[in-house]
Amino acid sequence: MNAHTPPYLGAAYYPEAWPDQEMDRDIEWMKRAGMNVMRLGEFAWGRMEGREGTFDFDWLHQAVERLAAAGIATVLGTPTCTPPAWLSQRYPEILAVGADGRACQHGARRHACPNSPVFREHCRRIVTRMAREFGRDSNVIGWQIDNEVYPKGPRGCCCPVCLAAFRQAMRERFGDIAALNAAWGLDLWSMAYCDFDQLPAPRMDTWHHPSLLTAWMRFQSDSQVRFVAFQTEILRDFTAAPISTDMMYFNGVDYHDMFASLDLVQHNNYHQVDNLWHEAFWADFCRPLKDRPFWISETATCWNGATFAERYKQEGFCRANTWLPIALGAEMNLYWPWRTHWAGQELCHSAMLSSAGRPYHVFEEVRQIAEGLGKAGEFLCGTRPAGSGLAVHFSGLAWWMFEFQPMVKDFKYLPRLLEDFYGPMIRSQLRPDVIAPAADVESYRLICSPYLPSLEEAGVGPRMLEWVERGGTWIVGPFSDVRTAEATKYRHAPLGCLEDWAGAFVRYSLPGDPRSFALRWADGVESGGSVWFDALEPRGSEAMATYTEGPLAGLAAVTQRQVGKGRIVLLGTVPVAGDFQRLLLGLAAAAGIAPVAEASANLMVVPRRGRAGEGVIAVELANQPAQLTLPRPARDLLTGLGHSGQVQVKPYGVMVLAF
Amino acid sequence: MNAHTPPYLGAAYYPEAWPDQEMDRDIEWMKRAGMNVMRLGEFAWGRMEGREGTFDFDWLHQAVERLAAAGIATVLGTPTCTPPAWLSQRYPEILAVGADGRACQHGARRHACPNSPVFREHCRRIVTRMAREFGRDSNVIGWQIDNEVYPKGPRGCCCPVCLAAFRQAMRERFGDIAALNAAWGLDLWSMAYCDFDQLPAPRMDTWHHPSLLTAWMRFQSDSQVRFVAFQTEILRDFTAAPISTDMMYFNGVDYHDMFASLDLVQHNNYHQVDNLWHEAFWADFCRPLKDRPFWISETATCWNGATFAERYKQEGFCRANTWLPIALGAEMNLYWPWRTHWAGQELCHSAMLSSAGRPYHVFEEVRQIAEGLGKAGEFLCGTRPAGSGLAVHFSGLAWWMFEFQPMVKDFKYLPRLLEDFYGPMIRSQLRPDVIAPAADVESYRLICSPYLPSLEEAGVGPRMLEWVERGGTWIVGPFSDVRTAEATKYRHAPLGCLEDWAGAFVRYSLPGDPRSFALRWADGVESGGSVWFDALEPRGSEAMATYTEGPLAGLAAVTQRQVGKGRIVLLGTVPVAGDFQRLLLGLAAAAGIAPVAEASANLMVVPRRGRAGEGVIAVELANQPAQLTLPRPARDLLTGLGHSGQVQVKPYGVMVLAF
Amino acid sequence: MNAHTPPYLGAAYYPEAWPDQEMDRDIEWMKRAGMNVMRLGEFAWGRMEGREGTFDFDWLHQAVERLAAAGIATVLGTPTCTPPAWLSQRYPEILAVGADGRACQHGARRHACPNSPVFREHCRRIVTRMAREFGRDSNVIGWQIDNEVYPKGPRGCCCPVCLAAFRQAMRERFGDIAALNAAWGLDLWSMAYCDFDQLPAPRMDTWHHPSLLTAWMRFQSDSQVRFVAFQTEILRDFTAAPISTDMMYFNGVDYHDMFASLDLVQHNNYHQVDNLWHEAFWADFCRPLKDRPFWISETATCWNGATFAERYKQEGFCRANTWLPIALGAEMNLYWPWRTHWAGQELCHSAMLSSAGRPYHVFEEVRQIAEGLGKAGEFLCGTRPAGSGLAVHFSGLAWWMFEFQPMVKDFKYLPRLLEDFYGPMIRSQLRPDVIAPAADVESYRLICSPYLPSLEEAGVGPRMLEWVERGGTWIVGPFSDVRTAEATKYRHAPLGCLEDWAGAFVRYSLPGDPRSFALRWADGVESGGSVWFDALEPRGSEAMATYTEGPLAGLAAVTQRQVGKGRIVLLGTVPVAGDFQRLLLGLAAAAGIAPVAEASANLMVVPRRGRAGEGVIAVELANQPAQLTLPRPARDLLTGLGHSGQVQVKPYGVMVLAF
Repeated sequence: MNAHTPPYLGAAYYPEAWPDQEMDRDIEWMKRAGMNVMRLGEFAWGRMEGREGTFDFDWLHQAVERLAAAGIATVLGTPTCTPPAWLSQRYPEILAVGADGRACQHGARRHACPNSPVFREHCRRIVTRMAREFGRDSNVIGWQIDNEVYPKGPRGCCCPVCLAAFRQAMRERFGDIAALNAAWGLDLWSMAYCDFDQLPAPRMDTWHHPSLLTAWMRFQSDSQVRFVAFQTEILRDFTAAPISTDMMYFNGVDYHDMFASLDLVQHNNYHQVDNLWHEAFWADFCRPLKDRPFWISETATCWNGATFAERYKQEGFCRANTWLPIALGAEMNLYWPWRTHWAGQELCHSAMLSSAGRPYHVFEEVRQIAEGLGKAGEFLCGTRPAGSGLAVHFSGLAWWMFEFQPMVKDFKYLPRLLEDFYGPMIRSQLRPDVIAPAADVESYRLICSPYLPSLEEAGVGPRMLEWVERGGTWIVGPFSDVRTAEATKYRHAPLGCLEDWAGAFVRYSLPGDPRSFALRWADGVESGGSVWFDALEPRGSEAMATYTEGPLAGLAAVTQRQVGKGRIVLLGTVPVAGDFQRLLLGLAAAAGIAPVAEASANLMVVPRRGRAGEGVIAVELANQPAQLTLPRPARDLLTGLGHSGQVQVKPYGVMVLAF
Repeated sequence: MNAHTPPYLGAAYYPEAWPDQEMDRDIEWMKRAGMNVMRLGEFAWGRMEGREGTFDFDWLHQAVERLAAAGIATVLGTPTCTPPAWLSQRYPEILAVGADGRACQHGARRHACPNSPVFREHCRRIVTRMAREFGRDSNVIGWQIDNEVYPKGPRGCCCPVCLAAFRQAMRERFGDIAALNAAWGLDLWSMAYCDFDQLPAPRMDTWHHPSLLTAWMRFQSDSQVRFVAFQTEILRDFTAAPISTDMMYFNGVDYHDMFASLDLVQHNNYHQVDNLWHEAFWADFCRPLKDRPFWISETATCWNGATFAERYKQEGFCRANTWLPIALGAEMNLYWPWRTHWAGQELCHSAMLSSAGRPYHVFEEVRQIAEGLGKAGEFLCGTRPAGSGLAVHFSGLAWWMFEFQPMVKDFKYLPRLLEDFYGPMIRSQLRPDVIAPAADVESYRLICSPYLPSLEEAGVGPRMLEWVERGGTWIVGPFSDVRTAEATKYRHAPLGCLEDWAGAFVRYSLPGDPRSFALRWADGVESGGSVWFDALEPRGSEAMATYTEGPLAGLAAVTQRQVGKGRIVLLGTVPVAGDFQRLLLGLAAAAGIAPVAEASANLMVVPRRGRAGEGVIAVELANQPAQLTLPRPARDLLTGLGHSGQVQVKPYGVMVLAF
Repeated sequence: MNAHTPPYLGAAYYPEAWPDQEMDRDIEWMKRAGMNVMRLGEFAWGRMEGREGTFDFDWLHQAVERLAAAGIATVLGTPTCTPPAWLSQRYPEILAVGADGRACQHGARRHACPNSPVFREHCRRIVTRMAREFGRDSNVIGWQIDNEVYPKGPRGCCCPVCLAAFRQAMRERFGDIAALNAAWGLDLWSMAYCDFDQLPAPRMDTWHHPSLLTAWMRFQSDSQVRFVAFQTEILRDFTAAPISTDMMYFNGVDYHDMFASLDLVQHNNYHQVDNLWHEAFWADFCRPLKDRPFWISETATCWNGATFAERYKQEGFCRANTWLPIALGAEMNLYWPWRTHWAGQELCHSAMLSSAGRPYHVFEEVRQIAEGLGKAGEFLCGTRPAGSGLAVHFSGLAWWMFEFQPMVKDFKYLPRLLEDFYGPMIRSQLRPDVIAPAADVESYRLICSPYLPSLEEAGVGPRMLEWVERGGTWIVGPFSDVRTAEATKYRHAPLGCLEDWAGAFVRYSLPGDPRSFALRWADGVESGGSVWFDALEPRGSEAMATYTEGPLAGLAAVTQRQVGKGRIVLLGTVPVAGDFQRLLLGLAAAAGIAPVAEASANLMVVPRRGRAGEGVIAVELANQPAQLTLPRPARDLLTGLGHSGQVQVKPYGVMVLAF
């Protein structure tokens, strides 16, 4: 591999934290590992501006240059996640304020308010200075804004600036306070406000209105989105290199919005042995966001570790974990960090070198990955994951709505979406995109929208209907179309539009707590549902599954209806995984979508196509043997060996099979 | 059923939260359900007084009238539980202050201080205005003050007004600070105060003295009692309709005191499948408080639900749950709410109609209940539960004492009282009253007083002794008479008076943690105790049970002694349930109290007598079949069918059997 | 037993909390119990100085005298743990401040700041007055400073005085802020400070740097040490009686430092049935701290109890629990308390008399203990536990380092030290001293230093090396020498010095989460390790155990190397208990250290030697039968019976066997 040419393999590097003389050894080991890129700078504001207005970039220039001399490119991070001590001390108004009203302390990260004009001014200066210094440096192949941008704590920042901005945002959305009161139903409990200036920063010790909470957290998400856009604008003037920010999906930030202003998607990939397959979800989310390969900006070589080491991973995990997002469309993988910190809050994380500069046990495994990326580089750069026509919706707004209205006990949006819908999809060897409600849907033939409470989000409801009428197949529900954009229920019907569109009347609904109910599929299969039970009367649709017990007996659990050239399948409950797979495969087949491979469920198979030809990348995800049946003979670019028919894939094995 | 005549069946109705046009449909469904009463207004301060001093009752008059026109009476609630936003903003001194010193936020409920003179003034105005508007409206058949009145949070309100009032209350109780120091033993740990003004609002992060904590929470309870009495006085001038407040028994509020100034008892009944029988306890507590049938002011038709639905209940539960308190002496049952909210913190609760105005699956079950109440109405109104002569003590002061002094690990007063004593009673088909220590005891022949730490409360000790001397049988202990009214121990003996009265000397005591000890009953039955072990030496009494192991061996666990014409049975430990049932049935028989029926333990059988004749109501509580042997032929007023001998009752079945 | 002559048996007595007339009865029972000492005064500031500057010691003089008249000596406590209400109210600046910034409330204990000059002034006055009153009273045989001195809450006191003192302490340690930044690696995350005055009191809601946290808590420990030394200085001028403070080992206070200025060690012994053997650890820690028998200043007669009683203990436990520390070198045992409080936060604790003045079930057991101490008194006073030449390191600094850097998930320093190392030692009948890193090591031949992160503490590393070179055998690791004194890692090697000294190169390391790895001992035994896995390459040493799986296979887990006249055994992992016992016994034998007895593992056997002769004391710790093989005939001083050969010891039995 070469610097400045993907695929990129590298790590996060912190020269600011080490004596200068360590760098030569570090670089020597980087070369041995086969790395061609390092990320630098994203926490180093203090080294860049040790005192207010006094800047020092020499050390950073030297680092970039010494890396470049070794054939290693640099991604630079803006350091706004860690304002220096002098800034917090001299301008305490920049400090983020928690839900308990206390300003953050200096000494960790993310302690500044993204809306603070004073903080913004200081950010503008440091980012401008950095951009001026490095914007045209050809060794800098990309920019990362800040680090893991998301609202801190359970309510983000509750400082006076944020509170005023929230009130202004509500003023702009509703115009007058009566409209807000009406939209949120605040005549109940005498909650109605007389003025926007009565709106509070919602504390944790108050039982707040879910519409207020949802609006507050969307505002917090918007604040982060705007903070990133603010830095992007500054950087644009100085650099042509791609600008992004590293997504660490902690909660419902609207990353569709956030990446709108950015050039590509960066994503931090921290998964464990038991949920490695979740990374496929995030890769499937990153890929369609931009028409450009995404970057894995951080992942662990082995265990995670702040002040203690957590969960050693078996040999091969690093291989599968690195190749998985690359197979699914990434062109860069950075390990975090290059060398374990020798001090501070995260000195127990695995890396490539230990604090003492010695290679970890995984060093050789990474070196082989680098070698493999080199061998497969042309194929990887010359092909992209092939689109399948299948998508599943994933929404930041849904995240917040379920956070503040779980609807049934212990319901967690993302885990259930993964477990109930995304997991069965990929185990069926279907290859979905994961898309935001705002995303364009033209390229899809089959879309699944479970747990999507508001079809008002980004106007997705009417757009979906039009798309169905033009021929799309839409699997929707349960818990979809059950809330307005303001996180209230509809008053005219339990579902906003879906009863009409899907031709099904919701007679009544039961929660899936503490028990579930049985149902029978149209083909006679006896089974059950879970989570929630809408009792449907088909009115223009036909029942695909019918309840067989309790107050639900005889009513439909799943209906389908021809709509225009397309079809709407309404789920009134969550089918068991096997049933959903059968349903999905049937509808996919009807929509002309076939599984991408005949392969074990534990094998991720990614068809790739492009100017460099055609092939599949296979990555085993569960440390188990797997089989793949090749439709035609292929050559594994990693080994050079030819394969045909049924191929055995080793536990955590990776094959790059070019036809 | 008719409006203005019990039995009443209805719901809580929130017209303030809905567009006007929804009311016609709502009322139409109410009529179909057979309802004859709705509760209105208790959270609607904001709709009544949208700006300070500007009142609007038109909407409420209209609602009352439209309901009346449909034959539906109204219970009105004063809305003081939810002060409007303008009130919190303009007069922040009204806000309740938590144990952490922070004032509450607007946006939920119960955020005002009951002692705040400013808040009181605003309450006086809104209640006076409401009373003036509706006090003489014959459609308003009752008033509810506020909603679920109890001290908020773990320490109630800690605002400066409350703190000053607490200090004043202590000054009044003790006269001088030396007396308080002496009563609470404050020479220990140098805790003694020099002045009442040093008394703190006890924070959660300080390891406070249990006497201080108990006094503080009794003061908090008193504050709520006074707040209710304050509103009662206002209403009295304007209305002859019964005034009450809805008891939601969250903690040790002294409801005996609270209902003293009120006309009848309202009680909110929220139980689940596994503890439906607890509602019998509350009904047995409500009934003797007033010589007037009580009202169930709230219950769920099916699952509870704030922002998520919790615990669906099987068919029939609603029937049993509704009939149970009615059998035990209620004349009204209101479901909460009539229609599920379409917004806010509680939009997942079950109801009669969904947010969209569609009947829930339980609608028909409720309609049948209404029908049954109609058929049995004359019998229900013309009879009352027959007194049995049996009572069990239940004390708010005991609640607080055990809260701050559990005495043994994880001891919880109410659950243990239910599990160890009340449960075995009702499973034996004995029908107790549950009474406060302040209650008159003349009408009882057998009283059980376990877990009653202070016999100084309301002078209950000497009154019980007199009652015993006149012929009563008193089962008392364990953990009874172990604390002064100030939550300290006695210094002269482990029990204040009971050793003398019961003729038993406590040699020493052992906690029931981590093990229990064996004992043998006088009739030779080998068994054990639990929770606590007093080792008793009979001194004038005889041993009914004797320990057989450990340091307790040979000492008595239970003693009995003839006292005057009566008898005192002292429990030194908690007998296992079967032993207690045997003991109780024997003592009851000797006191002339027989089980009310030969029936399954899962069947609540309530004898009723009155001008309308005699009969029993049977309600099955565990969703299991049950049997009842009738002493003479009877007719089930719900079905019209005659029964005699052994009758089968269906799971969750209800029979109203008139002889 | 006589007053003023050990062995001492007594209790904590609180005459300030009781009516005067109770004292006669109390003293009568004390005499019956055979007690000869009481501790008084340690919470009674309020009784001594009821108003500022007004003192009353009459009650205390009377108590001391009445006790003395009954042959009972007094230990006096200074009452600075419980400043009176007037002090907190008039000088609120004395109140300790929690990590959340809130000042403590009056009403419990330890609510004053040890560094507050105002508090110090008041302490000086009360201690001076007490000392003047009682310093020359021959009935007062000892002084206890304060009570259970340790930093309160998770961060000790965070008041402005403490914060300023911490900053000053850091200024003194580092000289300039750049040195601190460099030592803690604060260029990372822009954490570097510009000035010592930017250093914060670290809050709980900030993810703070472990070096800051460690430094902060060491400062807190130092503050307590200085507070005790400050009182010691005052007392010295007035009394010749021994001065100490009662150690309640809650966290990493440096008790080696604290007792440096004191005359003997006091220790509060609160253990349960399942961890009684832990008290041996504390006794082994107390004994070598001073060349004088230590005092058990508190222990329970039976269950513990604040506001509830916790964990009754079987008959005999009190005997074993009392004799265990005496066998191991104590000369006093005080029960806490003499009589259960009748009020307050701790009124459910077991004692000798109940609140009502009645003897507990354990009274007779204690009386027999007193009798036994009388019979064995001459032997006890005339002998001391024989030194064995074996020691294990225990460090307060290590406690804090592991608190803030557990290194592997859920690692707790003290429990693991006990479980993994100390336990196997004593079950092998080896008799270790437990010593601080600062302790002199000359008298030992075998020292075990596991989990000792910094060998820089008290210069222990180089001292140990010299000691080894002179012939010592040092078992060290794992987790030893892995941190600088500033709680950072080394950058040159994973271990600071041990690779060189032990002749072993750490190839790499793996955490023991979630799995452990197998190893084979040099003698062929197949086994495993746990917690942590250093993969060692012997470089001048030889492998004693070698890993057999995973990335570790073939690398050494344990090495040994001859160094000078001694030997260093480096543990790269935690051996299973049996392996460690075998290893230890082999090395001990080579060092001339033999097990003290052939005896059951549940039997504590303590050889004693001195002017009164020679013998062993045996105490059974697990309520199981035990055997002891006597090397020569002996007489049990408690029974007067002679024994030889194999002796049976009863559950919780005690034998004082003089040869």
